[in-house]
Amino acid sequence: MAQDPLVIFTPSGKRGRVAAGTRVLDAARQLGVDLDSVCGGRGICSKCQVAPSFGEFSKHGVTARPDALSEWNAVEARYDRVRGLKEGRRLGCQAQILGDVVIDVPPESQVHRQVVRKDAAVRAITMDPATRLHFVEVAEPDMHEPSGDFERLARALREQWGIEEITAELSLMGKLQPVLRKGGWKVTVAVFADHRGGPARVLDIWPGLHEGGLYGLAIDLGSTTIAAHLCDLDTGEVKASAGVMNPQIRFGEDLMSRVSYSMMNPGGDREMTKAVREALNRLATGIAADAGLDPALIVETVVVCNPVMHHLLMGFDPVELGQAPFALVTSQAMALAASDLELTAINPCARTYVLPCIAGHVGADAAAVALSEEPGLSDELVLVVDVGTNAELLLGDRTRVLACSSPTGPAFEGAQISSGQRAAPGAIEKLRIDPETREPRFRVIGCELWSDEPGFAAATAQSGITGICGSGIIEAVAEMRIAGLLDASGLIGSAEQTGTPRCEAEGRTHAYLIHDGTAEGGPRITVTQGDIRAIQLAKSALYAGARLLMDERGVDAVDRVTLAGAFGAHISPLHAMVLGMIPDVPLDRVTSAGNAAGTGARIALCSRAARARIEREVREITKVETAIAPRFQEHFVAASAIPHASDPFPHLRAEVALPEVGFNTGGDGDRGARKRRRRA
Amino acid sequence: MAQDPLVIFTPSGKRGRVAAGTRVLDAARQLGVDLDSVCGGRGICSKCQVAPSFGEFSKHGVTARPDALSEWNAVEARYDRVRGLKEGRRLGCQAQILGDVVIDVPPESQVHRQVVRKDAAVRAITMDPATRLHFVEVAEPDMHEPSGDFERLARALREQWGIEEITAELSLMGKLQPVLRKGGWKVTVAVFADHRGGPARVLDIWPGLHEGGLYGLAIDLGSTTIAAHLCDLDTGEVKASAGVMNPQIRFGEDLMSRVSYSMMNPGGDREMTKAVREALNRLATGIAADAGLDPALIVETVVVCNPVMHHLLMGFDPVELGQAPFALVTSQAMALAASDLELTAINPCARTYVLPCIAGHVGADAAAVALSEEPGLSDELVLVVDVGTNAELLLGDRTRVLACSSPTGPAFEGAQISSGQRAAPGAIEKLRIDPETREPRFRVIGCELWSDEPGFAAATAQSGITGICGSGIIEAVAEMRIAGLLDASGLIGSAEQTGTPRCEAEGRTHAYLIHDGTAEGGPRITVTQGDIRAIQLAKSALYAGARLLMDERGVDAVDRVTLAGAFGAHISPLHAMVLGMIPDVPLDRVTSAGNAAGTGARIALCSRAARARIEREVREITKVETAIAPRFQEHFVAASAIPHASDPFPHLRAEVALPEVGFNTGGDGDRGARKRRRRA
Repeated sequence: MAQDPLVIFTPSGKRGRVAAGTRVLDAARQLGVDLDSVCGGRGICSKCQVAPSFGEFSKHGVTARPDALSEWNAVEARYDRVRGLKEGRRLGCQAQILGDVVIDVPPESQVHRQVVRKDAAVRAITMDPATRLHFVEVAEPDMHEPSGDFERLARALREQWGIEEITAELSLMGKLQPVLRKGGWKVTVAVFADHRGGPARVLDIWPGLHEGGLYGLAIDLGSTTIAAHLCDLDTGEVKASAGVMNPQIRFGEDLMSRVSYSMMNPGGDREMTKAVREALNRLATGIAADAGLDPALIVETVVVCNPVMHHLLMGFDPVELGQAPFALVTSQAMALAASDLELTAINPCARTYVLPCIAGHVGADAAAVALSEEPGLSDELVLVVDVGTNAELLLGDRTRVLACSSPTGPAFEGAQISSGQRAAPGAIEKLRIDPETREPRFRVIGCELWSDEPGFAAATAQSGITGICGSGIIEAVAEMRIAGLLDASGLIGSAEQTGTPRCEAEGRTHAYLIHDGTAEGGPRITVTQGDIRAIQLAKSALYAGARLLMDERGVDAVDRVTLAGAFGAHISPLHAMVLGMIPDVPLDRVTSAGNAAGTGARIALCSRAARARIEREVREITKVETAIAPRFQEHFVAASAIPHASDPFPHLRAEVALPEVGFNTGGDGDRGARKRRRRA
Repeated sequence: MAQDPLVIFTPSGKRGRVAAGTRVLDAARQLGVDLDSVCGGRGICSKCQVAPSFGEFSKHGVTARPDALSEWNAVEARYDRVRGLKEGRRLGCQAQILGDVVIDVPPESQVHRQVVRKDAAVRAITMDPATRLHFVEVAEPDMHEPSGDFERLARALREQWGIEEITAELSLMGKLQPVLRKGGWKVTVAVFADHRGGPARVLDIWPGLHEGGLYGLAIDLGSTTIAAHLCDLDTGEVKASAGVMNPQIRFGEDLMSRVSYSMMNPGGDREMTKAVREALNRLATGIAADAGLDPALIVETVVVCNPVMHHLLMGFDPVELGQAPFALVTSQAMALAASDLELTAINPCARTYVLPCIAGHVGADAAAVALSEEPGLSDELVLVVDVGTNAELLLGDRTRVLACSSPTGPAFEGAQISSGQRAAPGAIEKLRIDPETREPRFRVIGCELWSDEPGFAAATAQSGITGICGSGIIEAVAEMRIAGLLDASGLIGSAEQTGTPRCEAEGRTHAYLIHDGTAEGGPRITVTQGDIRAIQLAKSALYAGARLLMDERGVDAVDRVTLAGAFGAHISPLHAMVLGMIPDVPLDRVTSAGNAAGTGARIALCSRAARARIEREVREITKVETAIAPRFQEHFVAASAIPHASDPFPHLRAEVALPEVGFNTGGDGDRGARKRRRRA
């Protein structure tokens, strides 16, 4: 007797012999090949499409004859007639294996398909969503064997999909009976089974085959803005992205002022909780409308945020986060009903997953950055810096990951800067100073031209030139240092010392004039000595945090630096290093990760394995608390110099020469005063 | 070296040697002795009180010297000074075992103590509540090892109480931080861990030692009335009981009219759901006030009800229960947050347990009756009848339990009876007819006197004599049969045939006059031929249901009958048997179980083991659907006669002689018509 047919699946390479007549879908299941199916092999969902190959395959050692699969049957013919089947494709649940054959499972037919991350071409998300669709045929009620409709649905899911146990909210149970009857006892259910085990949850049910898909919302809940991606939970595709301002800003610009608001106003935390939950509902409604989708199809959300936002979202008073020892109510990941957070705009049974917090100052957003940037999978030692009002830092490689936060303050976001402003049209975002003439040229947000290019004035007439945003002030200070307008201690030279009238006296210190818009009714934009001091404080805190992690790790250098955060995407690595914000590494080893926290949220949304991984990793991360580290202050002081008082920054100096200027005349400015204090 | 001391605990008899110096509480734990403790051995809760005995115990083979336990220590002395320790008592967590000793654990120091059921002296509830108090000391936050307060609480419960994993609602987490700090990191938590396993749930938290107790509400949610017992979850004691009318009555008197209301009025089910949930909240508030307790101390509720009430409570449209095949949304037991049912009057984290339904017509109330009456533990074959608008029947013994419901209609409750009324003051509830004079005498609700006793008129002047309630009509019909006023076919004789003018002509049939109150402005109360027919229909259905179960079981007789339901408590066994409502058994084998459903709810409230048991038993019960049983109709017709057309009822006939009268004159009444139809 002839051997059973040999079937080889690509791209997995899984192979084995199956009885002649075995359906391709069954063969795939027998061999552990990842082949999707929603309808369970009934020839209606078309998720199990495969591309068989015929001919001689020396690589696989088989010859597939043209009749290796059964002829099209009536189901395939009808499917092709009604919906169209791509050339060369077969329905895996219909085609039977009759002889040796090579069968390719195209990406769209794989459950655990790879989704390319736009932000990082080298990495992909492996789809492993918690919520999936299952088509089932449910037994009709029988008076001789009375049982509830829900119990019969449970039996169908057990027998047809191997889902052992299910549960559901009362609201879902309440719609079960009419849907079962409308669908003639054939229904599609959305079943949520996350990485934590326990009974699976039925989130929704539709009569017949539901073809509307399932969606999830990955939410990066920042202090200032709330950004969200609406993702297809089957393909991982981002269908729409949107952002709104965090309405809590009216209670306080930064986190600590919101904590204060809660302390000073009884019930203030509840007001802020209400505000942010409402904003999330508006965001969900808007993003679903953008994508042309019913918001009820949003069955999952993932939220990442800092600890204060975390507590305000959960409805916890954040007061303990405002004072040592910065105790969180809970640090572990939260798997909730979205309704627990009053997210009423989406599916009423939707689930919410909130990533774990790392520590009282290092939140779920930092965990999301870790998930996105994977420092723990890096062969080289990488420093990941999420720059914001508080900077979160992760340092690690395959050996170990450390984390801390550092109180940089809002200077990097343009706050506390004399001409500072938010990143908005009209803000200077890039700036260069000619080392010879010491004249500046710059670009403003909303215009692609440099200020010395023709047409710039016309192009910016509408927006005006209104101030300097975070990346602009970093470039301005670094360029001033490169151009010799600023010494290593952070003093701006006078017009005489620097040879440019743009270095104007301002009391006992100096300021560098970037742009005088007064003729057009705009502002005079300068970098003052006070601005330099604010940037120095911020960058010293950031660098000191990084050094503290390096101390803990016992190293003096890192191999590469990743700048995360929306702001990180706009920072020029060279200028950041001139400023001494980050440790010295070859410039090409400084990369931007864009909104890594948002990406981490998206990864957690699409993958249960990622949720399990980040929960494990966060437990293993070494937490370093800057507030109580004795060496923090020492590192902070040394980091005040630009780029640094003692660290040599050899890679930086190979790229750019920093003039050895010194503008301290002994008697002027606050620097002298500081020196005197230090001597005392 | 001397042997370790021998300790013998009573009443368990558990014994063993422990190292000298072992605390009594630790010894109890080592030996598996049930000794309570809330504070975990810190000498503050006093739950671990024991009564040591000294002297010679030949029975146990030990001699306990007076110094077998350590002297009172400072903790015991302080406790005695502040709170008083009963003579001879010691705190188990303080007293150390130094020599052989016999130690009695009094009932109040046992976790699994027995609570006597007032309704059934021979049975007791073994306390095994799902929610218990635990006093814990929680570690303070540490910046070097950042963790959430909740995680440290979890660790404390794991280390101090062996509770492996906990979870909690967001609202509980939100109150964690202030309570921990107020209690100086010593708190009492109410931990819910039910029979289903999974993480334990923290339901509430108090600073320091909480001494206010924990309470539960056992609710019997009937179509007409809602009754509840407020129970102490530690002692099992009933602190208060209360009942309210089911406000759904305004949507329909009986269940089917409520189902119709839902069918005819879109959203009608939601109106009824809202009404019943509001009633439960009012009931909880009222009963807590009666007991002088904070309703927030009610942390659990158990609900039993029929399937229609079950669905309306859950928020499920009951429409499918109004038509074959009577499919339930879900039949399994429900473990819910009380907030899922909008039970906002009690603790916000309270849990609700709803017993499983047996079938579409046999609800969680029948399951509760099974839990209370335990037919599956009976050596004899017992029939349990819960009499109401629908009668639920359980037949069983240790071998097997069967269940069905029978559509008796509301006649047994006085509805559809010409002079019928609800059981309320003024209603005739007991009635006797003198077999000689054929004169009636009766009692009305609200008066202890019989109508032929002196003072009756004065005593009933206030209430009047307004009608006949359910138990009254059963006695009236049975007494008419005994007195020869009614023949076996159910015909009332004429005045000539019976020799009493009270048998009045009414059209072509007759009615028996019980009381003429017209002179006092009251009604004429009679039993009409129509009333007899209504009772016949009801009792035939009940008897046919019982017979159907007996058929399924393959028996012709049962050993005993239990009448359950508030109404069951008022039915006279003799009269029920004369009527042929129940199968023939010796009269002393008919007992009343009172509100067995309510008792079952109380048992489930106090015992996780009982919840597990009833879930298992309900799965194993053989469900018999009367609506599709071919023999039901046959049994129904045969049961129309009073007491029965073919079953001999020997035990009944030994008790009372039933006159062999016959009032069918061939041409009169509907009986003749029926005979003619049957011949055709």
